[in-house]
Amino acid sequence: MPSSVLILSGGVDSTVLLAQLLSEGRAVRALTVDYGQRHRREIDSARAVAAHYGVEHRVADLRGVAALMGGNALTDASIQVPEGHYEAESMKATVVPNRNMLFLALAGSWAVATKSDTVVYGAHGGDHAIYPDCRPEFAEAMDRALGLCDWHPVRLERSFVSWDKARIVRRGAELGAPLALTWSCYVGGASPCGRCGTCVERREAFAKAGIPDPLRYA
Amino acid sequence: MPSSVLILSGGVDSTVLLAQLLSEGRAVRALTVDYGQRHRREIDSARAVAAHYGVEHRVADLRGVAALMGGNALTDASIQVPEGHYEAESMKATVVPNRNMLFLALAGSWAVATKSDTVVYGAHGGDHAIYPDCRPEFAEAMDRALGLCDWHPVRLERSFVSWDKARIVRRGAELGAPLALTWSCYVGGASPCGRCGTCVERREAFAKAGIPDPLRYA
Repeated sequence: MPSSVLILSGGVDSTVLLAQLLSEGRAVRALTVDYGQRHRREIDSARAVAAHYGVEHRVADLRGVAALMGGNALTDASIQVPEGHYEAESMKATVVPNRNMLFLALAGSWAVATKSDTVVYGAHGGDHAIYPDCRPEFAEAMDRALGLCDWHPVRLERSFVSWDKARIVRRGAELGAPLALTWSCYVGGASPCGRCGTCVERREAFAKAGIPDPLRYA
Repeated sequence: MPSSVLILSGGVDSTVLLAQLLSEGRAVRALTVDYGQRHRREIDSARAVAAHYGVEHRVADLRGVAALMGGNALTDASIQVPEGHYEAESMKATVVPNRNMLFLALAGSWAVATKSDTVVYGAHGGDHAIYPDCRPEFAEAMDRALGLCDWHPVRLERSFVSWDKARIVRRGAELGAPLALTWSCYVGGASPCGRCGTCVERREAFAKAGIPDPLRYA
């Protein structure tokens, strides 16, 4: 059976990706990273999603290295999370330096240790404008590096790299993915704020997909 | 002034690399990773080397993710460190899954956050036979990924990739690098064992370079 290590944030994209991988008959291990993000609520969502599907799940504790990534709105409480549209210049405050390479490296370690075939992450078309480490050419370089990092080669899959988020939402609904368990908001309150870039992007995607968003916004 | 983040293990190679970068007039930040290695003595060596040169030094705590890398002799105390020649098949027990990608990702985060020009690591010719993530083609893929991971591109330098360890020892002696502060032994005792692969490699390199090794072996 093909086996994969999936980076599961607890958001919509990685949850739908988990549903899709399981629908293809894959053995999946799910990895969530605690990097001191202010929206720690997403870690609980990841746990709930993994439990929903009964897949092996690990939360990697990277809080001890968050100080290396200083100066971004997701790990530094003194910097405000920008509101407005996801693709706006102001959203660059939410770029965590080199986050995806770090996540892919951790997933790669687990994939090598478990002799898994692939590492999978949910970067999609809408991410590229703002997050440099969601660009297809970054993913290609990481695919090559993962293939060479060990005598057991690992491939990097980025199933959604050419999809928009509305298509991911539609696919999630088709697969019966537990979208009510997911979390997107970067602000980290008890309810999603509805105004930060990632809330705006999520609401637009559900609206475009014609699927009701099961979350209640503040 | 060109600025670099150096991965400083506390061993000979990265210590000589630090001496070389400083001799070239670089601004250097040094990063050491605590990944639960049994030879924790090398972390103290890294601290001593960084203090000797007065460079900024961080120890990144990755002990929380060591469980992802199970089954190798460096982080799993139930697996014995192999003795004998560095290039022997038995030395593969000391391969920590995807270690260098993880170290380079951490160094990349700090380099992006501090707008450093390069990440530097001390992989050298003698490493390739045993460590897949010291191969030049792995380094090339990581160089490309580091150049794309952020809007601020970072390059990967691997100054010693075509050197043998004897040449590194000679260069260290020329530069007056504090070789007496370094640590190589994987076993983690109070004195270096002299018999594990990395002790054997170190002693061969000093002998070939015609430089006395300042360490006292058990």
